[in-house]
Amino acid sequence: MKEALDEYSKRLGPILSIEWILVKDNAQLEAVLVKEDPFIALEPTGKMFTSEDFSKWLIQSLEAKGSRLNFVIGGAQGIPPEISKRAFAKISLSKMTFTHQITRLILIEQIYRSFEIDKGSQYHK
Amino acid sequence: MKEALDEYSKRLGPILSIEWILVKDNAQLEAVLVKEDPFIALEPTGKMFTSEDFSKWLIQSLEAKGSRLNFVIGGAQGIPPEISKRAFAKISLSKMTFTHQITRLILIEQIYRSFEIDKGSQYHK
Repeated sequence: MKEALDEYSKRLGPILSIEWILVKDNAQLEAVLVKEDPFIALEPTGKMFTSEDFSKWLIQSLEAKGSRLNFVIGGAQGIPPEISKRAFAKISLSKMTFTHQITRLILIEQIYRSFEIDKGSQYHK
Repeated sequence: MKEALDEYSKRLGPILSIEWILVKDNAQLEAVLVKEDPFIALEPTGKMFTSEDFSKWLIQSLEAKGSRLNFVIGGAQGIPPEISKRAFAKISLSKMTFTHQITRLILIEQIYRSFEIDKGSQYHK
């Protein structure tokens, strides 16, 4: 699984760099988010996108937010409401619940796919 | 990625066996489906479930269909309508489009999760 994540990081390399920050608890998450703002919360009630719409939205958001974005993936209890309410957007990948690793894989693949869609490559066909 | 798929197959081993049949084209898919009936089509327009609802639905469907079910994952062009219309159900994992490998991983993990939810384990918490 780690290899699959690394592969997408590598492919994204010329376009953007991906950094994963793992936090142990909500206090650590708060501490990280003081520096890492703005952020997007992955939430079950978030907006669901098609890959095409996510591509447009992601690229517009990167432009609007100074080419730097954070995605917050909650733990088993989800993201605490006091953190979630400060997110500039809430998105949902699926109605289903995934493992943390699978969520990371889906997210990075959708980010990669977004740029492929934007440049009109055959990757997403 | 193959290791992750194998890991879930192994974990599911005592409950059910998973077989992946890869087909080259729609003619091969037709030939396989003559023997492998009933089947569920994964379609962008299919019903979306939470993991809890998928669990209930999957276990009921297995009971109703003689403990054997097939899921059809389409290729780049999707599942042809003449095949799709014979599916006993159409489901969707997400509005987003995933690679074939990621779709397989999500599907097998949700099948595993379904049985964990059903037996009330802590896996999905």
